[in-house]
Amino acid sequence: MNVPQSSPGSRLDNYVDRYAARTAGMTASEVRALFAVASRPEVVSLAGGMPNINALPLDAVADTVARLVAERGTVALQYGSGQGDETLRGQICDVMRLEGIDAHPDDITVTVGSQQALDLVTRIFIDPGDVILAEAPSYVGALSTFASYQANVVHVGMDDDGLIPEHLENAIAAVRASGKRAKFLYTIPNFHNPMGVCLSPERRARILEICRAADLLIVEDNPYGLLGFDGDPMRALRADDADGVVYLGSFSKTFAPGLRVGWAVAPHAVREKLVLAAEASVLSPPVFSQMTVSAYLETQPWRAQIKTYREMYRERRDAMLDALRTYMPPGATWTNPAGGFFVWVTLPEGLDAKAMLPRAVTARVAYVPGTAFYADGFGASSMRLSFCYPTPDRIREGVRRLAGVISQELELRSMFGGPGAGPALRGGASPSPTTQAPGPDLA
Amino acid sequence: MNVPQSSPGSRLDNYVDRYAARTAGMTASEVRALFAVASRPEVVSLAGGMPNINALPLDAVADTVARLVAERGTVALQYGSGQGDETLRGQICDVMRLEGIDAHPDDITVTVGSQQALDLVTRIFIDPGDVILAEAPSYVGALSTFASYQANVVHVGMDDDGLIPEHLENAIAAVRASGKRAKFLYTIPNFHNPMGVCLSPERRARILEICRAADLLIVEDNPYGLLGFDGDPMRALRADDADGVVYLGSFSKTFAPGLRVGWAVAPHAVREKLVLAAEASVLSPPVFSQMTVSAYLETQPWRAQIKTYREMYRERRDAMLDALRTYMPPGATWTNPAGGFFVWVTLPEGLDAKAMLPRAVTARVAYVPGTAFYADGFGASSMRLSFCYPTPDRIREGVRRLAGVISQELELRSMFGGPGAGPALRGGASPSPTTQAPGPDLA
Repeated sequence: MNVPQSSPGSRLDNYVDRYAARTAGMTASEVRALFAVASRPEVVSLAGGMPNINALPLDAVADTVARLVAERGTVALQYGSGQGDETLRGQICDVMRLEGIDAHPDDITVTVGSQQALDLVTRIFIDPGDVILAEAPSYVGALSTFASYQANVVHVGMDDDGLIPEHLENAIAAVRASGKRAKFLYTIPNFHNPMGVCLSPERRARILEICRAADLLIVEDNPYGLLGFDGDPMRALRADDADGVVYLGSFSKTFAPGLRVGWAVAPHAVREKLVLAAEASVLSPPVFSQMTVSAYLETQPWRAQIKTYREMYRERRDAMLDALRTYMPPGATWTNPAGGFFVWVTLPEGLDAKAMLPRAVTARVAYVPGTAFYADGFGASSMRLSFCYPTPDRIREGVRRLAGVISQELELRSMFGGPGAGPALRGGASPSPTTQAPGPDLA
Repeated sequence: MNVPQSSPGSRLDNYVDRYAARTAGMTASEVRALFAVASRPEVVSLAGGMPNINALPLDAVADTVARLVAERGTVALQYGSGQGDETLRGQICDVMRLEGIDAHPDDITVTVGSQQALDLVTRIFIDPGDVILAEAPSYVGALSTFASYQANVVHVGMDDDGLIPEHLENAIAAVRASGKRAKFLYTIPNFHNPMGVCLSPERRARILEICRAADLLIVEDNPYGLLGFDGDPMRALRADDADGVVYLGSFSKTFAPGLRVGWAVAPHAVREKLVLAAEASVLSPPVFSQMTVSAYLETQPWRAQIKTYREMYRERRDAMLDALRTYMPPGATWTNPAGGFFVWVTLPEGLDAKAMLPRAVTARVAYVPGTAFYADGFGASSMRLSFCYPTPDRIREGVRRLAGVISQELELRSMFGGPGAGPALRGGASPSPTTQAPGPDLA
């Protein structure tokens, strides 16, 4: 028997006839290859959703972690509870109180980032073909999780005040009329990814009412809730409905994503199923990460750190909006985020953000085309710009380059009629649906 | 709108009509309540599979982690690649070389413990009703993952030399005759959980041959491979077949489980699917944990640490075997592990390990009944004893107590005919199948 070479030599897939049906929904993002190019230093990437953790006091965190390992290492480095560390679950309740949530540590399941919480919720509720209602557009990582469970995503319209209640009512009715029932509504009420908008307080009450009447579970995904630039945090949907909402939270944006510590808050019976699913999936979330977060919350000024993050992101948001106003050609529109990481830009009519991306990367600027945020192929006329990571100067330069590419496209278009653009609005002819693995670069 | 109470007050499940079909396979272990009792200090637990990490040099690990955060914190605390840290993947190749594996860093997907690797492999290969072949008995955490994907587990017989090739051939033929095709064989060739035995070198070649002839993928789970008490590590199945084997590894037993760092080695096309599934599930494994493992491997004497672990576990294994020989009543038999964590005890005929467990816990000793390791309800006559965690004196005392309980059962049985015991051997009447979430306590 000879020792074979490592497998990269063999590119043939001997298993092609053996994969589970769900793998059909697991495909790499078409734009991933471009992002590899976009990660070159000369390209201004407005594509990534990585938080800017340069503001973290690394020496203090290093001390905290060293003390944790030296003093409680045999616990921190051991297996833990499938539900998560009890002390941390108590601290998570304190954090959520800032958004009006009155939860008990027993209600909480700690997860490997809130992405895992999303995966587990989908796992326990979704059979192949089941319907999930989600905002149009919606978080690419959620869409890819839903696709991996063969869910049928039905998008619900949004505007500058978030999810539109009438559209939600219509979607619920349409799903019912088709003989199905939506399993849950997936929504990001605060500083939406990718749109940057917030669900208004009036609409929050209305959405809760509609969902209660339809007996529709809400999955409230809230990674950015504490990153508002003005005033106090918005009141969570979960604050006003403990039985009808599963709330997903994360320390990725308020502390650091590399720890992968998120959580789900769920009604008792749902929580029990989440823990069983979590145990089958990873046994227990990393105790090392959990106790690091717990020690950080206990010993470090975490509220002041969130304030630092907020100020840093506000400055970047301002730079982006200012540059958009300065450089964008007429016909382009964009949202005005009051927090979070993202601005949603809609191109002048007839332009296609996905078709334009290679030219943008050539002009040394990158973004995520709007199609990534739709399960049904829409969104070609839009793009997500992130202001979280680059410096304000780089943001301004990136928007300037992008505006240049758009202006060139418009010029070409007026000269030659331009390349065939995708549907500019929902309701046009739908290209074949694409579902894309998020990739951490799109988080 | 009033603020509702936290949900523990409400025990009614409003969602009972809404869960995915797969949740039927997610049920809590019936013995979990007992284990809560068993965690009291006066009970000697021979149930848990927790590694004994008291032997770790915590100060050195603390220094390593502190330096990592202080010097490379903005990388270690950030999102990372869905496939895992590249440096760590190279180091994993070095570790696997000890078992004859010649892999390339590209072949490797880093996972949240090898449990997640198992979850991802199952996710990409198993549709509901698909057949998985697994040893009889098999790892409880694997069975619970398989159940959560609605797999149909077909057990294959083992003896002291591991999986029995003829039984494997028969199982493959039987599955074919039923019009199905097994998607993969799940096996733990080294220091098997729960049996403690190893697949002999002769059988390794034979099993590879059988699987190649049947075009059957092997999933080789190897958490204990470097924890052999005598001689060099066994040659991995993956070492002799790069295209037919997906290999799962873990740092949980050679370093520490609280970091949750494991991995899968897979042929190129399978690896691509694993990464997409991993991204949909957790975006990326914790970079913080991965770089901690990487820095530990780079700066600490990890080979010497494994030697320390091996010596500690050997002393405990010796204590357990010695106590079994001293105290066990005639009719009980057990395996002779040459490494790992576990001894598999088969009770004198007619005794039922699950029925006996409450009485054992009353006598202040705990174990895992054999039924936990079967998808089909068998195993009632056996139990798994772990020697990994308690001190040698506690192990001896635990076995003494256990032997006392067994002797009492035998006495009662000879006086009154005893309680109706479950089937003592595979092939007897099968009780209703149970599938159990592993719980980290059973890992």
